[in-house]
Amino acid sequence: MLTYNLDGKNKYYSLYCRIRDDILRGNLTSGQKLPSKRALASDLSVSVITVQTAYEQLLAEGYIISRERSGYFVAEVNARLPSAQHEGEAEEVCSQKPAFDLVSGSASAQLFPFSVWARLMRSVLSEEGEHLLERVPCRGDLSLRNEIAALLYRMRGVEVNPSNIVVGAGAEYLYGIIVQLIGRDKLYAVENPGYGKIHSAYSLNGANCTFVPVTKQGADPEAVERSSAHILHISPSHQFPTGAVMPVSNRLRIIAWARESGAYIVEDDYDSEFRLVGKPLQSMLGLCPDRVIYINTFSKSLAPSMRMGYMVLPPELMQKYLDLFSSAANVVPLFEQKTLAAMIGGGFFERHINRLKNYFRAIRQEVLSAISSLPFPAEVNDTGSGLHLTVKLPSAPSDGAIRELAERRGVRLRCLSDYLLAPLSGFERTAVINYGGLKKGEPQRIAALFHKS
Amino acid sequence: MLTYNLDGKNKYYSLYCRIRDDILRGNLTSGQKLPSKRALASDLSVSVITVQTAYEQLLAEGYIISRERSGYFVAEVNARLPSAQHEGEAEEVCSQKPAFDLVSGSASAQLFPFSVWARLMRSVLSEEGEHLLERVPCRGDLSLRNEIAALLYRMRGVEVNPSNIVVGAGAEYLYGIIVQLIGRDKLYAVENPGYGKIHSAYSLNGANCTFVPVTKQGADPEAVERSSAHILHISPSHQFPTGAVMPVSNRLRIIAWARESGAYIVEDDYDSEFRLVGKPLQSMLGLCPDRVIYINTFSKSLAPSMRMGYMVLPPELMQKYLDLFSSAANVVPLFEQKTLAAMIGGGFFERHINRLKNYFRAIRQEVLSAISSLPFPAEVNDTGSGLHLTVKLPSAPSDGAIRELAERRGVRLRCLSDYLLAPLSGFERTAVINYGGLKKGEPQRIAALFHKS
Repeated sequence: MLTYNLDGKNKYYSLYCRIRDDILRGNLTSGQKLPSKRALASDLSVSVITVQTAYEQLLAEGYIISRERSGYFVAEVNARLPSAQHEGEAEEVCSQKPAFDLVSGSASAQLFPFSVWARLMRSVLSEEGEHLLERVPCRGDLSLRNEIAALLYRMRGVEVNPSNIVVGAGAEYLYGIIVQLIGRDKLYAVENPGYGKIHSAYSLNGANCTFVPVTKQGADPEAVERSSAHILHISPSHQFPTGAVMPVSNRLRIIAWARESGAYIVEDDYDSEFRLVGKPLQSMLGLCPDRVIYINTFSKSLAPSMRMGYMVLPPELMQKYLDLFSSAANVVPLFEQKTLAAMIGGGFFERHINRLKNYFRAIRQEVLSAISSLPFPAEVNDTGSGLHLTVKLPSAPSDGAIRELAERRGVRLRCLSDYLLAPLSGFERTAVINYGGLKKGEPQRIAALFHKS
Repeated sequence: MLTYNLDGKNKYYSLYCRIRDDILRGNLTSGQKLPSKRALASDLSVSVITVQTAYEQLLAEGYIISRERSGYFVAEVNARLPSAQHEGEAEEVCSQKPAFDLVSGSASAQLFPFSVWARLMRSVLSEEGEHLLERVPCRGDLSLRNEIAALLYRMRGVEVNPSNIVVGAGAEYLYGIIVQLIGRDKLYAVENPGYGKIHSAYSLNGANCTFVPVTKQGADPEAVERSSAHILHISPSHQFPTGAVMPVSNRLRIIAWARESGAYIVEDDYDSEFRLVGKPLQSMLGLCPDRVIYINTFSKSLAPSMRMGYMVLPPELMQKYLDLFSSAANVVPLFEQKTLAAMIGGGFFERHINRLKNYFRAIRQEVLSAISSLPFPAEVNDTGSGLHLTVKLPSAPSDGAIRELAERRGVRLRCLSDYLLAPLSGFERTAVINYGGLKKGEPQRIAALFHKS
């Protein structure tokens, strides 16, 4: 039996480290059976959950493997695991629509308070009249920037000067502006696995990208420090697709790295409004406004068709932005900017977000119970943030098998490995469940599909 | 014991913030034990749930850790955060407006049929309803692309397949897309003198630029042939700022060059609607749809604030566009696209253009007669195209003297040489008169200013 003295704050992590190190040092050898969770827990006087979490982490990173009904075994760690190749997003070859979309579905448009929006549009139209034809300052309409600053304060607890905000036509547009501000000769680090559009937006804009591996705690700070990146693009509050939340110690460590190396951090806060459990996590912007570029959009919260987003720039970069763009008009029509400002200012936006959160809290519960009813082992990893979670399916033969199984049942689904931008092990057999497009009752219906045959 | 005054509606959040800030400021240090939930609750006269929720949030963000059966402790947080300093508002410098603007003024917004536009907006809003929230295909709304194709046929005599049209947020946005389609490793030739924003948009997007001198017949074909450019950006129908119109023989010669070398021609047709004398010249797109990228915007014809334009791509480049962007939504809101489609489809756009042309024909006459009344020699060069002309002032001591003389009279004015992107002779002592912002009677009033003193 393994005998460890587990001290410190985090018992599971400490257990995970001991076993990992023993495997790396050869004290535990390939093929060796590990004690059962229950046995090890009682032996070390820790809870079964602690052991299970440690085992899951080891499993996820490929240190151990699980064999159904026989337990956990040390994996062949020296063998190079075949990496899942990333099929380029040869997207939207409008194949027939799947019955259920767990990849890109979005229900927020259905919940969007269109009558409120239409009423605000009408009133903006009659109140503003021909003023709507005026040139929009390059940063965006001031009334909208004021409302965004107030919103950031209320929802994220950050004080932002509206003059440091830039309104733009969606996140990808803003990524392009960042490249123009910081330069193509710089190295951009993006998370791996990660949201492919971030990487491709930087590449399309001519920037060189490198990858930072993501752990259970988000982007790995050690890898960040080792990288020679000038810009680090991360989603610390809810990493996509792993769902990892970066603890504050790592946030501070990464901020210290940025301060020291003069790098910028792009904090992509794409779904922080949807923390369904507790309050949204503190933003990195609040911790370090002079090195952090904060980005968020309204596509998740309002409608995917609404290409409107904003970024908060450090003063130094805002000066550069004005130098480059002050003679250009903002790309988002004044009409939409004024309407959104009225929506936020009138409290309609937050009311809508609260409605969405209530809705998705119920959906999330349905998803969790649907997963627990699946006729095969399925381990949920969910931090209660945002609109997606991941499910490890240890008994699945391969990632391709998971996708195929789903597809045959009319369910569009991706695995963690589908989001790998460069080969990396430890992300196998894990489905990513975006429940942002599901309606009530659907999670159970989807689960039922896997009971038949 | 921690003593906080918890005011406000949200006690747990306020407690969370206080503890968090105390940790970040070092008032609570790593390893320090926090009071028990019960004790702190009774001490602060709040419910245990309030404290528990605050502790959970702090736990989730990694500020504190929990040790089973011993309670909560401050985590190892490496805080040494300097407070955010906010720099003074560096708002866009609004220097005082000149009395007359002959550089960038635009009167089209005043002539814009706002009541028609507002009516169309209202009807689009009620007809389309929630369809307005649908994702816009990457090329733009099909109804608008159909209308643009029909408009191009009526106004420019070119037959264009709507599926080769891309709608975008203004010309500069489209220039950026062109660089993404053709590549940064290619050489982009722009006209010299020319419109600075074209050159700077390409440069900002990381493309290398070279310059092609402009003669009285537009871009010099010989220089084009000598250049090793892969892309040639020209305005053959009305070069800015010289006003040169490229004769068809040169157009054909340049097309032959493009065919032979595999280069693309960007035909920037920015003000062809405003040919005030005769019909618009035949477009190069009509002559060679497989090598010409045609670009036009609605900022000149509708309002400068309207960042809406389009380009027609050769089939080969359209395929590339779809490969790159088919998973992205179009950046222009569907609402504006539908409204513009209704405006073109209902004939309101062409009626507006005709009104504008009548208006500017009169202004142009006034400008010509005002120039002839100047108390010094002034030779007009005007082709009857677009909304600007040039005036050679042979007796002026220098270009600087021309600008200064104008400025002292409250007239904002530029010379041809101000638009030189690389040194080139032959453009001296020539003022550029953009009369697109003038009202009736103003040309004579401006001329009068030069009689005094």
